[in-house]
Amino acid sequence: MKPKRVDHIAIAVRDLESALAFFRDRLGLEVEQVATVERDRVRVAFLPVGETCLELLEPLGDDGPVARFLERRGEGLHHICLEVDDISAALGELGAVGVELIDREPRPGAEGLVAFIHPRSSRGVLLELVQKPEDMGR
Amino acid sequence: MKPKRVDHIAIAVRDLESALAFFRDRLGLEVEQVATVERDRVRVAFLPVGETCLELLEPLGDDGPVARFLERRGEGLHHICLEVDDISAALGELGAVGVELIDREPRPGAEGLVAFIHPRSSRGVLLELVQKPEDMGR
Repeated sequence: MKPKRVDHIAIAVRDLESALAFFRDRLGLEVEQVATVERDRVRVAFLPVGETCLELLEPLGDDGPVARFLERRGEGLHHICLEVDDISAALGELGAVGVELIDREPRPGAEGLVAFIHPRSSRGVLLELVQKPEDMGR
Repeated sequence: MKPKRVDHIAIAVRDLESALAFFRDRLGLEVEQVATVERDRVRVAFLPVGETCLELLEPLGDDGPVARFLERRGEGLHHICLEVDDISAALGELGAVGVELIDREPRPGAEGLVAFIHPRSSRGVLLELVQKPEDMGR
């Protein structure tokens, strides 16, 4: 199940506009898209860097996982996402050896099938796997 | 100064061997190199993923920045590093607009010239810039 690419690095921020004032206006990254993901209670800005992407996550209101993260830890690195070819096979392999999965089955995400691994199994790193649509027919 | 690639994602771990038991043996990533960086008081394992790399950082003893990070926050995402073509120009631009720099001048790192931006200026993210040797002659 060797992951082949870092799909994105997610950063929790309190306010998207002031975060863009740094990552876009100071660092010079381009904003590809800004989207609201109601299911995860976030507004997200996507800033490509090479083959990966910084994702700035701003919570919608005081509930949801990103709002809770900000309350507990403040702004900063939230999770990373690795692309795999076959996410069902990957989850099967990881589950079989006792890795703690937040999602035991892949679920539809914004850009493919996704699943999260619990930070307890991955040295404190919240780790997402994604299988992109272009791999699904393989 | 548009950054062109995520050079690495650094993860602070208490013990390199047990971290490799997850990232290498469970996730299937290959270890390209393990090195001791006495200056930063760490042992580092480099695990390539596409054009970027996961860097697992284990502290050497109880001193040094990674040991202090582990004490304060536990294991997890520590910093990210973006590659730029001209790090001196980048630091000049950032400094001129008031971005707080840990290194005001680039310094030699393991794989090129590096400098850190203070998380106070980058929404809680410890951000490293690197200029690789292949760019230095441009």
